Amino acid sequence: MEILIQQEVLRSALQNIISIIDKSASKPILSNFLLRTVSGEDGDHNEAEFSATDYEISIIEHFPAEVIQAGSICVNAKKVYDICREFQGNDIRIRSTEQHWVHITSGASEMRLPLVEVGLYPQTELKQLSESLTLPAQDLKQCIDMTLFASQTNESRKNLMGVNLSSKEGNLTRWLATDGHRLAQVLKGVESASFESVSDVIIPRKALGEIRKAIELFGEEVTISFDDRVMQFVGSQVSFKTRLIEGKFPNCDPIIPKDNHLVAIVDRERLVSALRIVSSISYEKLKPVKLTLTEGKLRLESEKAEYGEVSDEMEADYSGEDFQVGFNSRYLLDALGVIQTERVKLECKNPMSPSVIRAADDEEYLAVIMPLRIEW
Amino acid sequence: MEILIQQEVLRSALQNIISIIDKSASKPILSNFLLRTVSGEDGDHNEAEFSATDYEISIIEHFPAEVIQAGSICVNAKKVYDICREFQGNDIRIRSTEQHWVHITSGASEMRLPLVEVGLYPQTELKQLSESLTLPAQDLKQCIDMTLFASQTNESRKNLMGVNLSSKEGNLTRWLATDGHRLAQVLKGVESASFESVSDVIIPRKALGEIRKAIELFGEEVTISFDDRVMQFVGSQVSFKTRLIEGKFPNCDPIIPKDNHLVAIVDRERLVSALRIVSSISYEKLKPVKLTLTEGKLRLESEKAEYGEVSDEMEADYSGEDFQVGFNSRYLLDALGVIQTERVKLECKNPMSPSVIRAADDEEYLAVIMPLRIEW
Repeated sequence: MEILIQQEVLRSALQNIISIIDKSASKPILSNFLLRTVSGEDGDHNEAEFSATDYEISIIEHFPAEVIQAGSICVNAKKVYDICREFQGNDIRIRSTEQHWVHITSGASEMRLPLVEVGLYPQTELKQLSESLTLPAQDLKQCIDMTLFASQTNESRKNLMGVNLSSKEGNLTRWLATDGHRLAQVLKGVESASFESVSDVIIPRKALGEIRKAIELFGEEVTISFDDRVMQFVGSQVSFKTRLIEGKFPNCDPIIPKDNHLVAIVDRERLVSALRIVSSISYEKLKPVKLTLTEGKLRLESEKAEYGEVSDEMEADYSGEDFQVGFNSRYLLDALGVIQTERVKLECKNPMSPSVIRAADDEEYLAVIMPLRIEW
Repeated sequence: MEILIQQEVLRSALQNIISIIDKSASKPILSNFLLRTVSGEDGDHNEAEFSATDYEISIIEHFPAEVIQAGSICVNAKKVYDICREFQGNDIRIRSTEQHWVHITSGASEMRLPLVEVGLYPQTELKQLSESLTLPAQDLKQCIDMTLFASQTNESRKNLMGVNLSSKEGNLTRWLATDGHRLAQVLKGVESASFESVSDVIIPRKALGEIRKAIELFGEEVTISFDDRVMQFVGSQVSFKTRLIEGKFPNCDPIIPKDNHLVAIVDRERLVSALRIVSSISYEKLKPVKLTLTEGKLRLESEKAEYGEVSDEMEADYSGEDFQVGFNSRYLLDALGVIQTERVKLECKNPMSPSVIRAADDEEYLAVIMPLRIEW
């Protein structure tokens, strides 16, 4: 195999590969990636296909390259990435020899690496799967951003370590994540959706994180296909395949409050700033904060500790009864951080039951946060 | 005390304070800083003086402030810094009460912190010291940048954990650092210098690092005064006082080669790029590299390892005998990183004796690097 590829293209292809491959070194074969020449739309070999897997998630990328001799190689990903970052913008030549070496050259610089037998590396194949949906890449990005933060990060409950995707009537999909303390949900219309034999799936955190990072390579649209075991995300330059999380996602409908009658609307940026100010004093990771709603006003207070206390207040569109509730400010900030609108709505019922945060003029997204018992 | 101060001013004053104060928490008093109002040039109180110490190094900063009531306070530095970073560009009011609280407010946001008795905090006083020199702040910055990297970072030899400053005939000063494997030296002319009762001193790494970070606050010139125990750096808005390192700095003159007859001149950026390329493959921290000089050419090679090898070559202004020498590429990169000129000079004698790196057309600076024994 011999190809010429732009340094910037190689760097960006390998950045996604590096992010996928196994870092544990427990399976040395997984420190490699596959590179092969493939034919583009005109039938000639003028594309390079990069692929890698950690057995859980696989990536396949296509980039333009000048193909001098068609072929395929398997080689250490990190070594190639480290050197290609140092090459300064020139075209890079990748040439394999019959003695199982690859020469990677740019100007007078040359790296020589041993090859691994292509057949030893686990191949990733995209398949025809029973269910599918298609949506704009920017919508997928939004669905990931708006839910992933609320999924569980530790392994105590594996079924919460991802985002639950299901269909809600017709072409409306529901993306849902929770860690038991808070929940985030987006309802997103898609161009076409089929959830016939599989009603819902749990997509792992890691896969969604990788897909999010490579989102620009999908082009305009992403086609998602799946069965009850695996899911494929196919775009113009990149495709991902991931195992799904086995197990049942809990029924979250009872947790999402329907009758929170205490509704306050506030400026989002002002609330974010106040939360950051009030939580700045706390040593705790989750930084508790007390919210007090009175007519036209929202007041925030930190704990009263021996090392000091902080308060802030702002205008609020609120006309209900006087009300106090405590939260982990981290959870509020996470939920507010993914909302784009100028004003947000806080919906509460009582200091013990879950509250809802959503955009003031958009029903597509909501976050539910369990209050914190406050004693000050 | 009550003052109004700009958010940006407070943030930048406290950033330097935070960097100084003791992080070990073993002496709680040192987590505080002193703030007092002082009179500016017109005699009125219209400046805020910030000071802090970790017993080794002290900082004193002066910034403009609107003084409503003169006075002084001592309060936790990190708490004030954390909240003032969150205030968005407004003026900040700092007001102490008789009940030993300080109120820090900006708009509707308010922080209340307990005060510490001012008298309990160790005061920093600048004194008249026997020796002194004056130099432009930009020259001081350069002397620090060009030597500090070569000083020792671990505590095995305390006398190497700083930069040795001495006087070489008249108003020429010598700044020198070494960790036993490499050495860096700048000769810098200063406006006036007195080294009468103290011939040389060792300035600690930490102090020079802090001074470097705050260099813009010194204004045009820095006046350095010292005796055999302490050193003061006085500028227009900031002053530092540091203990000096006790002990004798080794005599480095015999290590600096005088007769390295193999001289190659190469493009600095090209050499840096080649070193980064060739060292990219190595797993070792110091990344060994072999340099081969032949007429008109410099070739660099990594170790030949089972995981691959890298080489690069460039034009060199060299007409001596064919020559090979090994180095830790980290040391070469450190030395090249502080040279500003387009071309650099490499001076060698044999593969076992120290080599010199310097700017091609500047005798002010030199770095000496011990070669590495190479076996490939």
